[in-house]
Amino acid sequence: MHQKFKSMEALVANQVKKTQAVPEPSVRRMPMYLNLVREMHRNGEQYVSAPYIARLLHLDPTQVVKDMSYTGVSGRPRVGFQLDELIFALEDFLGYHRKHEAFLVGAGSLGTALIQYQGFRDAGMRIVAAFDTDKRKIGKEIGGITVFDLEKFRDLAGRLHITIGIITTPPSAAQNIADLMVGWGIRAIWNFAPVALQVPEHIIVQDTHIYANLAVIINKLGKNKNV
Amino acid sequence: MHQKFKSMEALVANQVKKTQAVPEPSVRRMPMYLNLVREMHRNGEQYVSAPYIARLLHLDPTQVVKDMSYTGVSGRPRVGFQLDELIFALEDFLGYHRKHEAFLVGAGSLGTALIQYQGFRDAGMRIVAAFDTDKRKIGKEIGGITVFDLEKFRDLAGRLHITIGIITTPPSAAQNIADLMVGWGIRAIWNFAPVALQVPEHIIVQDTHIYANLAVIINKLGKNKNV
Repeated sequence: MHQKFKSMEALVANQVKKTQAVPEPSVRRMPMYLNLVREMHRNGEQYVSAPYIARLLHLDPTQVVKDMSYTGVSGRPRVGFQLDELIFALEDFLGYHRKHEAFLVGAGSLGTALIQYQGFRDAGMRIVAAFDTDKRKIGKEIGGITVFDLEKFRDLAGRLHITIGIITTPPSAAQNIADLMVGWGIRAIWNFAPVALQVPEHIIVQDTHIYANLAVIINKLGKNKNV
Repeated sequence: MHQKFKSMEALVANQVKKTQAVPEPSVRRMPMYLNLVREMHRNGEQYVSAPYIARLLHLDPTQVVKDMSYTGVSGRPRVGFQLDELIFALEDFLGYHRKHEAFLVGAGSLGTALIQYQGFRDAGMRIVAAFDTDKRKIGKEIGGITVFDLEKFRDLAGRLHITIGIITTPPSAAQNIADLMVGWGIRAIWNFAPVALQVPEHIIVQDTHIYANLAVIINKLGKNKNV
């Protein structure tokens, strides 16, 4: 679908770039760039410049140029980046061309919402199975995904080579589940439970604390009212 | 349901405490405390100490004591905090006893997931209506919530005194929607679109960048593989 890199040299240069340590803030901006340029591409545009991206996303142009350099693409003077090339490079940087399959533990309300969310597939991750300890949930299907007994996690994760574990359990269960996941070969944990997990250093942990974000909003709203 | 504060003095002291500026990291930890103590309460416990909370949540005990002080409750020597009093104080601090109603714009996959997510109700916020510009979505019901034409936002927000706007639109639409929300009287924007919004200083913006979190996980997984 997307045009590949112009030359083997560019591809190799890209691979070299990718092994460099890219600062986390730059990594976090990549999906934002990709979303933007995908949309421009859908609208029939062919080229985009770094200053134009910077202006649309309210970023510093120098920062955008730097971020782009991590993906291995290079723009052309005056015209900028070729969109399909840039899309491919961003997708490649973000690992969207590799298959990342995840197991989710905790098929409650948030777990169900995440399973039903279609957007992860376009972002390189697919939730392939859910797990719970609640007998009433086990065996159910949510958006085409089966909820298994937690006891089946280890065996299935091993067979399917699952590397990502998503935790959407109640807070009291989260650390226990994280310990089990680590023991069962999971390498990255995406934690939605409001708990600070303790894991070995080689395990990747990423927290998305929805409640904490909401708490900040409501707290600030309350304070503004008092002023 | 929960026992109220022991005395008017304690209640007044609490109000005074609440108007102080509480550091954002402390605010972000409050839902974590509340989840934990609610669960202990359900398990039949009556008291909890700050060091115990600190141990369970992997936090510094002094920090926990400090955080608790912001809620206005005071523990008793040796026994610690009475659980139902602490729960009430935390809920009160977090604004769960006031009603925060929100409008959501962008009834796509993520918007649908958020609307169907039941957990917000226990966290002080209720999504009461959704909006979209896509004629195929307008008029639909998602989890008991109606999707209205975006043109109805202003009128409905005014009538219902809505203060929170949630953005789950495609990135290209997010800034435009934010501008409209500000013009229509929204005071806090919870943004799920991968865009850095520009809003007037008095508007509260909270970003939850799910894609950015996922990008960090996949990037780190890729790096670990190369080592």
